[in-house]
This record gives sequence, C-alpha cells and structure tokens, in this order.
Amino acid sequence: MAVALDLLRDLIRCNSVTPADDGAIDILVQFLEPLGFTCTRTPFEGDGSYRVENLFATRGNSGPHLLFAGHTDVVPVGDAGAWTHDPFSADVDNEGIMWGRGAVDMKSGVAAFCAALPAFIESGAADNCTISLLITGDEEADAINGTVKVLKWAAEQGHKFDFGLVGEPSSAEFLGDLVRIGRRGSMSFSVTVGGEQGHVAYPHKANNPIPILAGIATQLSCTALDEGNENFPPSNLELTTVDVGNAATNVIPAKGTLKGNIRFNDIWNAQKLEYWLGEQILKVPAKGCDVELNIKQPVSRSFVSDGSKHVDMLVDSVATVSGVSPERSTGGGTSDARFIADYCPVAEFGLVGKTMHQVDERVSTQMVLELQAVYAHFLDSFAQQG
Amino acid sequence: MAVALDLLRDLIRCNSVTPADDGAIDILVQFLEPLGFTCTRTPFEGDGSYRVENLFATRGNSGPHLLFAGHTDVVPVGDAGAWTHDPFSADVDNEGIMWGRGAVDMKSGVAAFCAALPAFIESGAADNCTISLLITGDEEADAINGTVKVLKWAAEQGHKFDFGLVGEPSSAEFLGDLVRIGRRGSMSFSVTVGGEQGHVAYPHKANNPIPILAGIATQLSCTALDEGNENFPPSNLELTTVDVGNAATNVIPAKGTLKGNIRFNDIWNAQKLEYWLGEQILKVPAKGCDVELNIKQPVSRSFVSDGSKHVDMLVDSVATVSGVSPERSTGGGTSDARFIADYCPVAEFGLVGKTMHQVDERVSTQMVLELQAVYAHFLDSFAQQG
Ligand SMILES: [Zn+2]
Ligand SMILES: [Zn+2]
Repeated sequence: MAVALDLLRDLIRCNSVTPADDGAIDILVQFLEPLGFTCTRTPFEGDGSYRVENLFATRGNSGPHLLFAGHTDVVPVGDAGAWTHDPFSADVDNEGIMWGRGAVDMKSGVAAFCAALPAFIESGAADNCTISLLITGDEEADAINGTVKVLKWAAEQGHKFDFGLVGEPSSAEFLGDLVRIGRRGSMSFSVTVGGEQGHVAYPHKANNPIPILAGIATQLSCTALDEGNENFPPSNLELTTVDVGNAATNVIPAKGTLKGNIRFNDIWNAQKLEYWLGEQILKVPAKGCDVELNIKQPVSRSFVSDGSKHVDMLVDSVATVSGVSPERSTGGGTSDARFIADYCPVAEFGLVGKTMHQVDERVSTQMVLELQAVYAHFLDSFAQQG
Repeated sequence: MAVALDLLRDLIRCNSVTPADDGAIDILVQFLEPLGFTCTRTPFEGDGSYRVENLFATRGNSGPHLLFAGHTDVVPVGDAGAWTHDPFSADVDNEGIMWGRGAVDMKSGVAAFCAALPAFIESGAADNCTISLLITGDEEADAINGTVKVLKWAAEQGHKFDFGLVGEPSSAEFLGDLVRIGRRGSMSFSVTVGGEQGHVAYPHKANNPIPILAGIATQLSCTALDEGNENFPPSNLELTTVDVGNAATNVIPAKGTLKGNIRFNDIWNAQKLEYWLGEQILKVPAKGCDVELNIKQPVSRSFVSDGSKHVDMLVDSVATVSGVSPERSTGGGTSDARFIADYCPVAEFGLVGKTMHQVDERVSTQMVLELQAVYAHFLDSFAQQG
C-alpha cells in the first residue's frame, strides 16, 4: 500500500475520539523524526478543559516558513451498530474505499501531507525552506488546549510563519473545486425578556413577556445584516432556540429567552454586532418588560487571506494537479484556521467532506493520493518561489 | 361561637388538600341530617383521575328547586413555615379574624349557607321549596370526579334544578360588590411548527421554524378577538409558553411549539375559536414549514345567566343585606358554575377572595356572618317568590 494509505490506516485504527489520543501522535513522530523533523510534544491542560496531546514538528531554520495544521482527534462514532464497517477498522473494500471515523475529517489530510514529505526532502528542495506541522488532538470539541496554545508556544520559541495550510476537508463536490481562503466569524447571543407573572384570567395584573420575545425574534430574523462583499457572502443570523418552560396552561410566565448565532463576514466585528443587536432589540417596544442581551464568549472573528501570494501558489497547485480551477471560498463553518490567521495568511485545502461526522465516514484511497499530489506540488512551489 | 363559625372552624381543621377529605364531608352530614336532609355520599373515581368524596344532600320534593354548590377541598398550604398561624388551626385572633387554608376558598361559603338553614327550616318557609347541596372534594384540582359527575348522577335520579347558587368567593373589594352571573370560557391550544434541522453555517440546507413560530406568536398576540358585549369584557388570548429546547448553539432546530389560552365571552364557542386560530395562523407565511394547531380538551364554554329572575332575587338579597347594589360580573377565572350552567341558571356569590390560595389565608368572622345573612335572605325570597 502507498505510504499515505499505510499512515491513514494506522491513524484510523487509533480510537482518538476527543480528547483521547490512543497513539496517533506517536505514529506521526515515528514517521517524521527519520525525515529530520524535531518533534516536540506540547500537551496542554487547564482553563476549564481536559488535557490534550499536541505535536509541533519542525524541519529547517531558513527560507520561507510553512505551517501545516491538522488534527488527529475525531468526533464520536454515533450509532456504532449502524456502521457498515467497524469505525476503527480502516477496512478497504473492493472499490478502493477506506472506511472509518476520521477517514475524511481529517486523518487523511494529515496522512497525505506527511506522505508528500519524503520525496520533497529527498529532492533537496526542502533545504530552501522551513516546514512545520502543528497537529492537535482537540479540534472537534473544546479547542481550548489545542491549536491556540500551541501557536502561542511556538511564537514564544521564536517561530514566525509565512503561510498556514490547513488540511481540513475543504472541497465541496469533487477534490479541487474549493480552496478556503477565509472564514466567517461566529457569535452566539441570547436575549432574555422579563415581564410579570400572573394568571391568564387577570392579564391586567401581569405583563406577558412572550409577545415582546416574539417581536424581537421577528425583528432579528427579518433584518439583513449586509449584502456580502467580494470575499464573503452576506452575514447571516439564525435563531437557535426560544424557551419559556412554563407547563401551567393558566399562567402568564415571568420570562423567556431566545438564543441565536450570527455567521458574519469581515464587515463586522464583535463590538459592531453587539451594537447592531442592541439597535434591533430597541426597535421592539418593550412595554414595561426588561430586555437583556448577552453575548456568549468567545466570539470567533472573521478573516480572509486573499492577496497572499501563497494562496495564489496553492490555487495554482490545485489547478495543475486536479485540472480544475478552484473557487476561492469563505463559506462553511469555523475551523482552527481562524486561530492561525492571527499569525500569518492561511488557507484550507483538503478532501470532499461529504461523509464527515456521519455514520460510515469513508474516503476513496485514490482521492487521498491525489490530495498528496497537490500537497507535493505546493511544497515544491513553496520551496522554489518562497 | 355562632353556628357558622363553629362549622367553619371544624371544616378548616380538616386537612382536606385535594383529593383528601379528612372528615369534612362527615361534618356536613352530621349537621344536615338532623335538619331533614337526605344525605347521599357520591364518591367517583376513574377517567384518569383520583377518587373523590362528594356529597349530595336534599330536602323537600316540591316547589322551586335550589341547588347550592360548594367544595370542601383546598389548595396546598404552600410555604408552611411562612404562615403566621398553623394553616389548619382555625385560630381566631383578637380582631376576630379566623386563620387557615380554606377560610376564604371556600369552607366559609359552605359554613355560612349551612348555618342559614336551621332558622329557614324552623320558620316553615323551607316547606314551599326543595333545597339541595352539592359539595365536592375536587374543585381545586382535576375536577374530573367531582361536580360534573355528581350533577349527572343527580339528573339520573330525577332532580331538576331551577337555580344554582355557588358559594365561591366572588366579591372583589368588599362583601356584596359583585355577583358573578356568568363566566368566560377557557380554551388552551398549542401550535407546533416543524422545519428542517441543520447547521447554522449552512442555513440553505435547513429550514428554521423559529421565525414562523415568532410570526404566529405575534399574529396571535396582536389580534383582538372582539370588543366584548353587554355581559362580557373583550375575549383575551395569552401566550403561555414557547419552547424549542435546543441546547446546541450551532444547530438550527427542527421544530418549536407555542402554547396559549383564550378566555372568551359568549360571542365564541370552541369551534369558532378553532377556526379563528386557523385563520390567524394562515396569515403567517409558513415558508415550507409544517404548522399544526392542537386544541386541548376539554374546552370550558362561556355562559351567562342574565335574565333569570333568581339572579335578580339574589342581587336584591345582596343589596338589602349589605346596603350596596352589586355589579353583575362575568369576569375572573373559571369555577364549577360552568358545569351547573348546563342544567339551570347559575350565579355565584361569596366572600372577598383576596387571601385565597395564599399564605395566611384568613377571613373576618364578621364577614362570614354577613354572608350567612345574605344567604338567609335569599332562601326566604326563593321560598316565597319561587
Ligand atoms: Zn476537522
Ligand atoms: Zn374555590
């Protein structure tokens, strides 16, 4: 089997549901050290979260510095009985499909990048640049003791990166159709409306908060934030829950809460959004109710790496290997790329994410090798053109 | 102590929190039998509710037939430690106030009516009419095995009533300011809106039900049902809860439910209200969501006994004894009067209800005696004028 597939199989066989590692980092260390990488385990713990195994591996100390970022943790298997193959088996079927949790998200991205390294190093090209890998065991859950802390630690060690490449499954329909050059920010909030409890037969002695809550819900869901810009689609607000929790059919409740989440483009930041929310809420007459807005911390900021020459280089590698010119996208959910954006331009390129987080997550072994080819092409370009 | 106060004390000392009886019915039987009443215990059980002790006591079999209705059950004491006097003590303080659960709602109404009987019977006036008492042990809770079933049973026994007098605390500020001649109906309903679950980052793959739910909530709470009529205030709809129950801040929920209650006048019935609700819901574009309206059974119908000569007679007795001309009201919550309205005209007259259902429920013993005087006057009028 090809190196990438050997590595991917070994990684899938680790039951590394966050925050378990189950030997995944060991496998990478054993692969990278013989290639000349200095491997530093950087476990972190505390800040209200569990201990996480992380790896920072680096080779070289001159030329442009590339940071490849990925994770070895996976989401839970869900309904284990519903899987066609054992989720930690890494079975390969007759059609060349490898099955297992993490096959797409994103043990394959890690395996494909690692597998591209031996030839790159053998060719001597690697000597013109510095290559680092940041592998975390906590991308899928709290993300408190993972990428954020390893990046801070690396900066303290004097590492300065010129470009970050994140191997998350970024492609939409086929490998190479999308390169993610930014991400929207994410802010969760709640609005609590407090009225006065009472009996439904005597509404004049009470003050029902539900009409105010409904009015605010309507105001928030009907008002557009923006129309998007050249890099981003329009920002979007979704209400995620409304709850009063009153079981008595003859009681006017004292209060209710609605919650929502905004995915926002680079027109906005947390402060502007909080002001905007306050404005919308004020448009709904409170009729004597108390209305309280709360912003859930942390807020993920939006970022975009358009204009970076390394993004152009990555797009070119994708186009050359896959034969398709990828769209530069800023859609989708958040990833650890938002943390890397605080240090250097960053882009994401990886597999098609269709089965990620689902029962029967699986990957075409052919596609893993294609991904390796894209990474190999990009590594060469990075070393040659800096 | 006066007979009414003796009886009231004995009744308060029964810990008859629904469905407990604790000897309350016994006390009434021992009082009524010597006065010539035929007392039939009519316990009922089943239909998804607990067993309830009830009493049907009747005297005479000619002339106009008066039904006095009341209950000996009480609501729980609440925070027992917060009571100034033990809630089952029936302590009388220096100012002539008797303390205890049921002092107002409505052991005093039962005691005052019973205490008016001996003189009425002794005078011979009672021989011109038939007097029945329907005392239930379940007015405050399920009301399934109480008044409704006793009424049905009495009808099967051949009893036909000309007028129902309910001794619930009907007065608002002082004894005699209100006679309740009807009640609004009560209908509870729920509206469930089902959309499609999804991730907040991919709203085009989901269909958020919350904006539709909020729109329906606004439509229902902003639309007037009617302007009231000569007997009733405007009907009123209150939303009592809205619930989605989605704890995940990044998930668009699949569905949400709102619930509400309508207190309606005699312009409406259950069928008309259901149609009205359906109309309001249809005014809110569902945008692909499923919207389902459910009416909670049973619906309490509205009723009004205006125009009954016995109501005029009761109003006259109140005015004569208290010196005030009472308002004929249809306000307030529901009571068992709604069940009696299916058999005969019915009105409610009793104490000021201010401390009912509260900690430190208490009654002025003077007011209990005044209430007895009103009942005595009405009994005489009823017997003389039929
Ligand atoms: Zn991932
Ligand atoms: Zn009552």
